[in-house]
Amino acid sequence: MYRKEIKATSHREGDIIDLTPDMQAAVTESGVKRGLVHLFVQHSTAALTTIEYEPGVIADMQRALSALAPDAATYAHNTKWGDGNGRSHVKAALVGPDLVIPVEAGKLMCGTWQQVVLLELDVNAGRTRSIVCTITGE
Amino acid sequence: MYRKEIKATSHREGDIIDLTPDMQAAVTESGVKRGLVHLFVQHSTAALTTIEYEPGVIADMQRALSALAPDAATYAHNTKWGDGNGRSHVKAALVGPDLVIPVEAGKLMCGTWQQVVLLELDVNAGRTRSIVCTITGE
Amino acid sequence: MYRKEIKATSHREGDIIDLTPDMQAAVTESGVKRGLVHLFVQHSTAALTTIEYEPGVIADMQRALSALAPDAATYAHNTKWGDGNGRSHVKAALVGPDLVIPVEAGKLMCGTWQQVVLLELDVNAGRTRSIVCTITGE
Repeated sequence: MYRKEIKATSHREGDIIDLTPDMQAAVTESGVKRGLVHLFVQHSTAALTTIEYEPGVIADMQRALSALAPDAATYAHNTKWGDGNGRSHVKAALVGPDLVIPVEAGKLMCGTWQQVVLLELDVNAGRTRSIVCTITGE
Repeated sequence: MYRKEIKATSHREGDIIDLTPDMQAAVTESGVKRGLVHLFVQHSTAALTTIEYEPGVIADMQRALSALAPDAATYAHNTKWGDGNGRSHVKAALVGPDLVIPVEAGKLMCGTWQQVVLLELDVNAGRTRSIVCTITGE
Repeated sequence: MYRKEIKATSHREGDIIDLTPDMQAAVTESGVKRGLVHLFVQHSTAALTTIEYEPGVIADMQRALSALAPDAATYAHNTKWGDGNGRSHVKAALVGPDLVIPVEAGKLMCGTWQQVVLLELDVNAGRTRSIVCTITGE
């Protein structure tokens, strides 16, 4: 088992960051040829998934996430704590914090138009997010 | 590999139950210091994710899930089977039944404001849910 | 570790295909009695989850996914690339590409009314989807 922390810095709410190069680098460092890579983001206002990493899909994702948890809604989290990121918590919980990707011949087995991404969902910009990367296999 | 069933009893639709203490207890029992914990809920009207476990986020989640699958909509599942939980099935499938969390030094590596939760999505209250917890590592 | 590619062929947008028999066959072939099965779909317009596999839930899922990413919306992905599947990318990213199911006594530990499914979300029908199935355990 090989473990590494991946850091990703966002600039604004809705940023989507391609983690694939850092994950592939971690797989190469681990020496694992055949196995699984697990990612877990240690925050409740960010999430992980896969997308085709191109500006169109990125824009479409931002709008769809806003429909799931509208900016204009009243959030009990905001009312209670006054930090304004109620919508961020909801979006992150619906998408989820973890992902497992297979590895073969030392390479991530993503599809041709499929990248692993971090969704920055917090309204407070400029955060450095910690993603625990755990690689198992042979 | 260490495996244990975690039980969680809900009282009403929309209940969100913090599984983190039971998971941490299972990790301690397993003796695993460094590895992964996998959870799987064996039901199609409940789901797993992580949230900041505080009453505001819990209320916000319940409302967002109702927007995903409104109470007032007509569900083909209800029409066919008459059990009234069509919306529960939809919500559960969108959030998902599984989760994997890393462990280091015998502790779950969740963020400070991040807990592992079961979402009770069924309209029929008072259910005991079975969650299979599988711990791998060293 | 045992790895196998599962193929699933869809006929139209919104098809939901039960992967449980193929997964169970892979578990039996692997000889693993106690462990975990990981699935990963190598496409950005398909997704994996669990549902009660009956026609009512299948119809309800299709409608809920359309509410998440309406047919009539304008997608930046479509504007840029002209391939019409902007909504497919959004739905797939929200549901997610991976799933892990526990195995005990050589059997998948799904609930009685819980099947593992592929969601075909692309507007272009008749695709064969590749799902990487990785089985670990004893």
